[in-house]
Amino acid sequence: MLNTLIVGASGYAGVELATFLNRHPHMNITALAVSAQSPDAGKRLSDLHPQLKGVVDLPLQPLSSAAEWADKVDVVFLATAHEVSHDLAPAFLDAGCVVFDLSGAFRVNDSEFYQRYYGFTHQHGDWLDKAVYGLAEWNHDKVKEAQLVAVPGCYPTAAQLALKPLVDGELLNADQWPVINATSGVSGAGRKASVTTSFCEVSLQPYGLFTHRHHPEIVAHLGAPVIFTPHLGNFPRGILATITCRLKPGVSHDDVAAAFHRAYHDKPLVRVYEQGVPALKAVIGQPFCDIGFAVQGEHLIVVAAEDNLLKGAASQAVQCMNIRFGFPETQSLI
Amino acid sequence: MLNTLIVGASGYAGVELATFLNRHPHMNITALAVSAQSPDAGKRLSDLHPQLKGVVDLPLQPLSSAAEWADKVDVVFLATAHEVSHDLAPAFLDAGCVVFDLSGAFRVNDSEFYQRYYGFTHQHGDWLDKAVYGLAEWNHDKVKEAQLVAVPGCYPTAAQLALKPLVDGELLNADQWPVINATSGVSGAGRKASVTTSFCEVSLQPYGLFTHRHHPEIVAHLGAPVIFTPHLGNFPRGILATITCRLKPGVSHDDVAAAFHRAYHDKPLVRVYEQGVPALKAVIGQPFCDIGFAVQGEHLIVVAAEDNLLKGAASQAVQCMNIRFGFPETQSLI
Amino acid sequence: MLNTLIVGASGYAGVELATFLNRHPHMNITALAVSAQSPDAGKRLSDLHPQLKGVVDLPLQPLSSAAEWADKVDVVFLATAHEVSHDLAPAFLDAGCVVFDLSGAFRVNDSEFYQRYYGFTHQHGDWLDKAVYGLAEWNHDKVKEAQLVAVPGCYPTAAQLALKPLVDGELLNADQWPVINATSGVSGAGRKASVTTSFCEVSLQPYGLFTHRHHPEIVAHLGAPVIFTPHLGNFPRGILATITCRLKPGVSHDDVAAAFHRAYHDKPLVRVYEQGVPALKAVIGQPFCDIGFAVQGEHLIVVAAEDNLLKGAASQAVQCMNIRFGFPETQSLI
Amino acid sequence: MLNTLIVGASGYAGVELATFLNRHPHMNITALAVSAQSPDAGKRLSDLHPQLKGVVDLPLQPLSSAAEWADKVDVVFLATAHEVSHDLAPAFLDAGCVVFDLSGAFRVNDSEFYQRYYGFTHQHGDWLDKAVYGLAEWNHDKVKEAQLVAVPGCYPTAAQLALKPLVDGELLNADQWPVINATSGVSGAGRKASVTTSFCEVSLQPYGLFTHRHHPEIVAHLGAPVIFTPHLGNFPRGILATITCRLKPGVSHDDVAAAFHRAYHDKPLVRVYEQGVPALKAVIGQPFCDIGFAVQGEHLIVVAAEDNLLKGAASQAVQCMNIRFGFPETQSLI
Repeated sequence: MLNTLIVGASGYAGVELATFLNRHPHMNITALAVSAQSPDAGKRLSDLHPQLKGVVDLPLQPLSSAAEWADKVDVVFLATAHEVSHDLAPAFLDAGCVVFDLSGAFRVNDSEFYQRYYGFTHQHGDWLDKAVYGLAEWNHDKVKEAQLVAVPGCYPTAAQLALKPLVDGELLNADQWPVINATSGVSGAGRKASVTTSFCEVSLQPYGLFTHRHHPEIVAHLGAPVIFTPHLGNFPRGILATITCRLKPGVSHDDVAAAFHRAYHDKPLVRVYEQGVPALKAVIGQPFCDIGFAVQGEHLIVVAAEDNLLKGAASQAVQCMNIRFGFPETQSLI
Repeated sequence: MLNTLIVGASGYAGVELATFLNRHPHMNITALAVSAQSPDAGKRLSDLHPQLKGVVDLPLQPLSSAAEWADKVDVVFLATAHEVSHDLAPAFLDAGCVVFDLSGAFRVNDSEFYQRYYGFTHQHGDWLDKAVYGLAEWNHDKVKEAQLVAVPGCYPTAAQLALKPLVDGELLNADQWPVINATSGVSGAGRKASVTTSFCEVSLQPYGLFTHRHHPEIVAHLGAPVIFTPHLGNFPRGILATITCRLKPGVSHDDVAAAFHRAYHDKPLVRVYEQGVPALKAVIGQPFCDIGFAVQGEHLIVVAAEDNLLKGAASQAVQCMNIRFGFPETQSLI
Repeated sequence: MLNTLIVGASGYAGVELATFLNRHPHMNITALAVSAQSPDAGKRLSDLHPQLKGVVDLPLQPLSSAAEWADKVDVVFLATAHEVSHDLAPAFLDAGCVVFDLSGAFRVNDSEFYQRYYGFTHQHGDWLDKAVYGLAEWNHDKVKEAQLVAVPGCYPTAAQLALKPLVDGELLNADQWPVINATSGVSGAGRKASVTTSFCEVSLQPYGLFTHRHHPEIVAHLGAPVIFTPHLGNFPRGILATITCRLKPGVSHDDVAAAFHRAYHDKPLVRVYEQGVPALKAVIGQPFCDIGFAVQGEHLIVVAAEDNLLKGAASQAVQCMNIRFGFPETQSLI
Repeated sequence: MLNTLIVGASGYAGVELATFLNRHPHMNITALAVSAQSPDAGKRLSDLHPQLKGVVDLPLQPLSSAAEWADKVDVVFLATAHEVSHDLAPAFLDAGCVVFDLSGAFRVNDSEFYQRYYGFTHQHGDWLDKAVYGLAEWNHDKVKEAQLVAVPGCYPTAAQLALKPLVDGELLNADQWPVINATSGVSGAGRKASVTTSFCEVSLQPYGLFTHRHHPEIVAHLGAPVIFTPHLGNFPRGILATITCRLKPGVSHDDVAAAFHRAYHDKPLVRVYEQGVPALKAVIGQPFCDIGFAVQGEHLIVVAAEDNLLKGAASQAVQCMNIRFGFPETQSLI
């Protein structure tokens, strides 16, 4: 049994982590923690998320420093704000813990990126060098050896799972950038109170045009330019990405199908559709990313869907953890 | 043309008031105001509520004191917090304005009520004495003469419109209190940010069991005890109240129908169903209260539906204003 | 391993059954079936419910007669229309199968009941006599011995779990009938196309006033009269029941708490709240029924919430199956 | 006063037409009609759409032939299926009525188009020649003279209002086709019962990839190729279109702003945003199309939002009617 700590357990991704780990046969949740300033400190997780009453009633302990827990646990999940992850991770790592960070703090090995998109100066270039980007289907072998896994962002997971087979397979016309239109559920904005995410204010709308920080994350790991337009959808969870690409002359529907088959035929958590494209309901509450596509002439539309809190966050973190420790990749996820 | 000021114009009821008054042929919106501390001060109404772009673009002026506006306007609508209405109304009234207050500050002529349910000591007993309770269908003649109209709460409007014909007609068995189960849209909680009303947190739930301050308001004006259980519904607007009563022995379906007919056959904004009961969609965006009922033996179920922001707030305020100034009762409402 | 057949697998309860049984360590899903006339016959379950792609891809076999399967399976779940269950169950039972029927066909041992509320003449009085009503927390010992379990209706489960401790404990004033106001998600109406349940038409509304067939089911098994008013809610799943009762003089809050504690302290799937009342979100996707209450003087309000497709249908069926075969009561449910 | 007939009045667009025309000072609704086979024939409009009780209670008359009404009315609105409009319109036109057709039957002057995309052979090439495409902001002068106005489809209205200023202004790089991703509310699928549009089945999903018949309608009237991907959204009404374009080298943000200003500064029902892009809530229940955009280098994203039942159907029809008869363009719409 591995002892584990979840920091930031009160948020939406934290709850999903607690649920998965609670039923994992090889994991013991040693403690749940929140920042010492959080108004939730001292409450039980099930006070905030009543579906967990009688299932996970552990208290949310105020975390002052990593030192309190670093020698009591083997594994740490950080479902925390970017700066908090940046500050906390090194102490856990130095103490020998394996860390799965769900924030953006260690995703892109480029310190300027943090200055520009996250507004802080990255202090831990050494760990940034060592961090493995946890896009599980693509970095399996590195994740197996990692001490620090930077779990990808929600949009980047869907976008890259859809595009990597095409980019790596050199099927796309480089003159025309893929256009990624993606719509996310409101839970992507977190659990804090805000007029923007209040029940009466939410309606479908684009945001962050040309400026969302998931754009450079996608570009960095995909190795190709894209246009990325995120939207806030009027549903609690899920991401649907519709991606319009230009194929190289001569590339056929079957070539695209073959590329996806090659990439994912042996990956249990990516489901490639033989025909049709996914609806969001296919993946809500599920650990899968579903992918479908259509071709007309040189035009290709790929649709990828996932649960933003699961394959876009918590279940991908657990998937990486399963890979890291040699458990079945889908343990406790399906 | 009457000059009018809307205070608290940035909230959900304020927006509805602005929309109705903007299209009213005898009203001129002189200004929209919010409290001087509001972060919305200085913005245009249409910045906050984009449906009004090009329709009502007036700025939200910071209001320091009633004196700034009292001599520039004839009519004031207060869509403000209870304490704010309590503090502001007298200065407008002393200056001769006619005031329509959508808060609870002048609804119940009982100073203890304010101490107990609103948590402040009422300082304006004189105006409390003079205030007319604006349940338009029942207090028409008094509203016509009023300088201060206390527009009823959203739940009390639905509950009383459903029950007054029965109580006044002495059709109910006094030994068993009517059981009012009512569900309100989230807009009833106002526009401020709160985890409780955030998109991902809202789900159907009862609240304020035995303690909601609309309970004593209903009892005071109905003149009969009731059990009132409000619920938060997962929809933006509307109230549906299902009311279970015990009839006196011998009272028939036709007696109930006759009581409703007598009360409302000449009231344009209460629609009594000849058969069936209302669904919420019948009244969303409409100035009506719809009422239907069913009888079995001595048991009576009455269902009343209204838009909480309209008949439960803004349209009833305008309806009272129309009555007060001799305009057609439904002017600008239908 | 027990071999099992799910009939009516394409509906919403059927899908939940398939999901639970697919992960049950002692169950083997031998086949999924639908009526021979169903347009879904021949499709895979995951074609209709894409969340199950790669999880449960079994085909929906057209069922002409029970004989085809009766000797190949040990256990049969009937998630079928009332008349279909009525017609099919006896053949499975005569062949020795244990049958869990989710319809109303064997719930009330009174043949007039079927004539009046279900519109057919019951032909199987012998099996009606032997059927055990599967309200799991109350009929545990009988379920353990049963060959035919009639799983309770969704509303009756919530209503009875809330009221039985009070009725059996003789805490209620018999002169005033409990008033049950319950709101169900749209999935309660099944998966067939209908204008009533179409996306643009659904809004909160009462239906079946004084005439819903779950009313006599509640009364028959509770042994006390009630007033029951169901509502259609604008959410896909879940039931919230708000029940207003009159206590006998002298009965206190603690007496009520003690009655609930006695009834459920050792029942893993009923969660009694020490304070507050449940919101619907506490039980969506969960196998629990949550109960909370408030007392003021002689007035008692009990709130019960459950997922209509789970504790109100599929998970209660599996819970009964677990009890019947000696598996842990919550196996595969939590 | 002009006498008017609405055919297909029971559908969602029909209801909106009835509401607008009921409050129009120069229109008299002579009759509402539905097809003679409709189960709604004989009912009152307010029986189907209870919000209209007491407002528009006219009966839905079964229509066997245009002859019954053609000489009793001046104006006909056809909110009917494509084939029905195709069959009915000529008789009304021959009798001298002015016809506003909300279907696709007369939108594209190309008989092959009907064969291919609508599945029928167009029999009325003469009227197809004379029909004016009612994109009100662009065809004002032709609409003024028209006897038959083919009101544009919902998606084509949003797409063309966003793209025409750019295409006509020659601002776009012709090598890269604009990518239109649009999401429509469920009401776009009409009021008929269907599993696809049932409450529990709807979730965000693309459909009709490369094959939707609004694609050729857009291309025909825009005069430029596009990629169009429609999506079904989980909301009742509204369309949001996010359109990604490549600008010609050297074209700036200000050039784009100028093009939109030129096109719409004097059009009351298109609102161009000086900054930001529209959210869907800005246009729900409103007769506007709202447009915003962002530029980065040669990349341009334009966002257009409208209510699919209003600017995408009924209000645009009334807008055309106002233009045709010389009433103020926004009469009864704002």
